[in-house]
Amino acid sequence: MPRFALTIEYDGRPFFGWQRQTNGPSVQQAIEEAITRVVGEEVRIHAAGRTDAGVHATAMRAHCDIDTRLAPFRLGEAINAHLRPAPVAIIACEIVADDWHARFSCLGRRYRYDIINRRAPLTWQHGLAWRVVPALDEVAMQAAADCLVGHHDFTTFRSAHCQAQSPLRTLDRLDVIRDGDRIAVFAEARSFLHHQVRSMVGCLALVGQSKWTPDDMRNILEARDRTQLGLNAPPDGLYFVGADYP
Amino acid sequence: MPRFALTIEYDGRPFFGWQRQTNGPSVQQAIEEAITRVVGEEVRIHAAGRTDAGVHATAMRAHCDIDTRLAPFRLGEAINAHLRPAPVAIIACEIVADDWHARFSCLGRRYRYDIINRRAPLTWQHGLAWRVVPALDEVAMQAAADCLVGHHDFTTFRSAHCQAQSPLRTLDRLDVIRDGDRIAVFAEARSFLHHQVRSMVGCLALVGQSKWTPDDMRNILEARDRTQLGLNAPPDGLYFVGADYP
Repeated sequence: MPRFALTIEYDGRPFFGWQRQTNGPSVQQAIEEAITRVVGEEVRIHAAGRTDAGVHATAMRAHCDIDTRLAPFRLGEAINAHLRPAPVAIIACEIVADDWHARFSCLGRRYRYDIINRRAPLTWQHGLAWRVVPALDEVAMQAAADCLVGHHDFTTFRSAHCQAQSPLRTLDRLDVIRDGDRIAVFAEARSFLHHQVRSMVGCLALVGQSKWTPDDMRNILEARDRTQLGLNAPPDGLYFVGADYP
Repeated sequence: MPRFALTIEYDGRPFFGWQRQTNGPSVQQAIEEAITRVVGEEVRIHAAGRTDAGVHATAMRAHCDIDTRLAPFRLGEAINAHLRPAPVAIIACEIVADDWHARFSCLGRRYRYDIINRRAPLTWQHGLAWRVVPALDEVAMQAAADCLVGHHDFTTFRSAHCQAQSPLRTLDRLDVIRDGDRIAVFAEARSFLHHQVRSMVGCLALVGQSKWTPDDMRNILEARDRTQLGLNAPPDGLYFVGADYP
């Protein structure tokens, strides 16, 4: 049975997150049901990351084994036809080796967090970015971000519901880039703890407002204490933007 | 009575365009009613441009005379509070001279048209960009765009409903810029004819698909004949992004 790798874009607003839930719609369920309508059998898909409710993706990666002779391109088209009108799209579909695993083969995960730094309410960006009203100093934010890059115990930036065995992670990139009233935070690591990106961004926003100094960021990291966290940013601005494989 | 200049962002999807209509909601009506709720009197606002149904703005300019002693900043905040939940936001509000007119003082208008050039359906960009499936050659599109820059009779690119007295316009800029699967077309002129930007973009897309050559663009311009138009692009991707004043 061939294994297919999917690249998936989705608008997280109507979903209770990636993973199947009993209490509401999930991206995983939407795609699995679409595949079932295409090939007439139950399938299970496995993703590089499990995004929370309200979190988006421009390029989530996932795999599934499907008993079909459809060419990958046709399969992707057929899934898209059956996904309608859910805001989920298969951007690419290809056949991969039987031992390729979207989650376990993944060597790097990339997120982007979008902030709109202005007083005026959002219009079409509602739920697609985090509006922060006080003026943010992106230079101070970058200085604080630099304290987090590297191999650390990220207990402070980890949700109480995190299921990872270890709080140790290596953060390869945390860049703060302003373009007009938009600030994008780019984060890259082999893997992240639950809520890690949102927790880091929330604290960066405190530094940007001069409520915290970059040294405060270093101190709460070293405290390894979740109660020291200043702020967890909302899911609205978070996008899973890429996963890297060998 | 002070004259206020407003800078306005809006999501055009729920509106029948800028201008007041009897058959549905308009951006103008939404803002005028919000101002009335703030100051308790009827006002009339005048915009730099009247966008069609489904067209958006990041920085529409408009003015209105309001009998209030509210500081401009407070007035803008109050209008925003009363606009909720309509996807319209006052980005800036300032007092201008009594003879400043958003439409008649305007020396230049700028639009951006967003194309997403891919096979997969759109997700959160539904109604916010035009999806074009065939691969577009942006170099050929720019060559065709260059034929339109300058002072010309744009009859071919003008809606049958256009109320302008003359079809002559000077197009100062028409740039086609690709970033991954996104293509943005930037258009600048002192003023545009009705549907001019959408008509130019529709024909650029034909050139991008090699259905037309850049010479075809020159030929239909010189034909001065609306029936020669290849395609009028949908409103989805069009944004009013700026107006310039002395």
